[in-house]
Amino acid sequence: MTQRIEAIYHLRCDASQAEARARALAVEQSVEMPVSAIEDQRVLAEIVGKVLSISDLSGGVFEARIALASETVGHDASQLMNMLFGNASLLEDVVLSDAILPAELLVGFGGPRQGFAELRDRMGARARALTCTALKPQGLPPEKLAELAGRFALGGVDCIKDDHGLADQHYSPFAERVEKVAAAVARANRASGRRTRYIPSLSGDLDSQRRQLKLARQAGLDMAMVAPMLAGASNVHALARDNPDFAFIAHPALGGASRIAPPLLIGKLFRLFGAAAVVFPSYGGRFGYSKETCRAIAAAALGEWGGLRPAAPTPGGGMTLSRVPELLEFYGREVMLLIGGNLLSARERLTEETAAFVACVEGHSHG
Amino acid sequence: MTQRIEAIYHLRCDASQAEARARALAVEQSVEMPVSAIEDQRVLAEIVGKVLSISDLSGGVFEARIALASETVGHDASQLMNMLFGNASLLEDVVLSDAILPAELLVGFGGPRQGFAELRDRMGARARALTCTALKPQGLPPEKLAELAGRFALGGVDCIKDDHGLADQHYSPFAERVEKVAAAVARANRASGRRTRYIPSLSGDLDSQRRQLKLARQAGLDMAMVAPMLAGASNVHALARDNPDFAFIAHPALGGASRIAPPLLIGKLFRLFGAAAVVFPSYGGRFGYSKETCRAIAAAALGEWGGLRPAAPTPGGGMTLSRVPELLEFYGREVMLLIGGNLLSARERLTEETAAFVACVEGHSHG
Repeated sequence: MTQRIEAIYHLRCDASQAEARARALAVEQSVEMPVSAIEDQRVLAEIVGKVLSISDLSGGVFEARIALASETVGHDASQLMNMLFGNASLLEDVVLSDAILPAELLVGFGGPRQGFAELRDRMGARARALTCTALKPQGLPPEKLAELAGRFALGGVDCIKDDHGLADQHYSPFAERVEKVAAAVARANRASGRRTRYIPSLSGDLDSQRRQLKLARQAGLDMAMVAPMLAGASNVHALARDNPDFAFIAHPALGGASRIAPPLLIGKLFRLFGAAAVVFPSYGGRFGYSKETCRAIAAAALGEWGGLRPAAPTPGGGMTLSRVPELLEFYGREVMLLIGGNLLSARERLTEETAAFVACVEGHSHG
Repeated sequence: MTQRIEAIYHLRCDASQAEARARALAVEQSVEMPVSAIEDQRVLAEIVGKVLSISDLSGGVFEARIALASETVGHDASQLMNMLFGNASLLEDVVLSDAILPAELLVGFGGPRQGFAELRDRMGARARALTCTALKPQGLPPEKLAELAGRFALGGVDCIKDDHGLADQHYSPFAERVEKVAAAVARANRASGRRTRYIPSLSGDLDSQRRQLKLARQAGLDMAMVAPMLAGASNVHALARDNPDFAFIAHPALGGASRIAPPLLIGKLFRLFGAAAVVFPSYGGRFGYSKETCRAIAAAALGEWGGLRPAAPTPGGGMTLSRVPELLEFYGREVMLLIGGNLLSARERLTEETAAFVACVEGHSHG
């Protein structure tokens, strides 16, 4: 193998089986056939996966490091997902824990064209955490969503993202929603002097997502949300590659993240495919992620990685205003905080509550 | 709710929490915000998910049946995946067990335009099980793959599908592979008088998959393979919808099927999105699926479902020639048997071994 991917799996099995299981996994994730039946020397030398090491993590779990040929991936993002976990996802006792990618893949995919730093520039917020909220519930017509968004924007939040359930439904068509919400946010920005961004969620097939992105562009927007596990990684990558002036937020819907380690899937791979910000369920909210997992996701999104732009860790999923100081202590200022439902619960005081969120973040003293 | 989806989840929790957990899940998978903060009467009445029933499955597992508004989905396949399991996939103790879809969704998606019966017609095999093998290993150049495919075809197998690892790699570009493999199979068909199909795997983003499908069409092919969880369900649905003369085989790569019940994901949803045949790992092979799971997948792919064409259950994943009689006893003749690596292990006797597979299926007496 010239350039190789190092895929790191956790196997639950007896110690006596660990080596055989690791070897079987290396075959499954590469040639997927009996190695004894392969005659081609190049395939044997360069394509068949190789077990690099096996270590006992105790508790009946073993870490297997497996080398896979980078040339099996090319620059196809879905094919990278396939090589890392395509068939292994069907094995109940295998977790994809991490992956070390060669520089050529990092450069080939390119990561976000607009990353965290560029987000900060757009919002004129170089030295503080960013703020984000979510536009919902689905079922509301465009006018009501626009009115809500206007009130969020008057509160000065940096980003207003669509709930990931908002698609192109007949009761709230994408085109009409984007036009009205964008206009409401622009009005609020003129009143407030702020630079609040509306971030519509792109849905449907790639054609549909491209049409939607074009509508967003026509409405003066420069950010959009995508869910790589719903859309297909290659399609998300194509959107990011073809629209280098847009910043993309990645939503983890359908991420089934207990089988692919969240720091890898959300922190690294979504960033690799072009996300400027990666949404994930924070500890202490509606989902079961631990502090360690959240810290690891943030570190993966932000860390030096082959020169790729950092993506903004965007913890959400049941966050509340009262927890902002604690969250900022935990995540530091290299974060975009996402509070949705808790702000919406303020109902008629939504703008004030949003402003309190913003003030809390802007006024936080990072020790 | 006028038309509703009934999503069926299994929750692992204390009995005392089951009701609250089910209610929370109904909210998570619909409006994803505090219901108390929703003012809109239509949203409250028609969009917020409703718990229909909770039943104790014993062992600390509860079944929650939740109604979701069909109009939140429209005809967007990825949005259906999102509504069924988008955020729930992030909850470690929730499994999507099944879903009952209203007739309008079944008709709207349409399922396979070419289904199992049409596959049988193409192969002139109305009254027997179909046979399938896999072209691999990845890493071989087009000429070698074509040579292998020719030998498989001379053995008379019905379908030769690409290994799901074959993409558009530099050492075996899709265009060249398809041209050469299709030609080799056509030559073999002229010699044998059979109608063996070569089924290339479509990879990359939707643009790339469309280009590849066009190349397949130019090479005289009429079937292709797709992996809905890699490509995005909406993109697979678009390919099936826009190419009604093509039959599509669905591969379960990245299916992480332990979190979405395989009969639902592979047997129903892949069929709904347009697959004529659904590949799944059979019991007794390299993967851990039970006989019950396999029987349920086959039943879901074949059963009456809103008038959708049946899809061919295609068990594979480590099947062997010696097991064909047993597999035919188990699955009956409403099946396409998939044997790949085991035939390749025959090496110089590959054509004969393939012919033995075919003869075994053709000669099987279904009691």
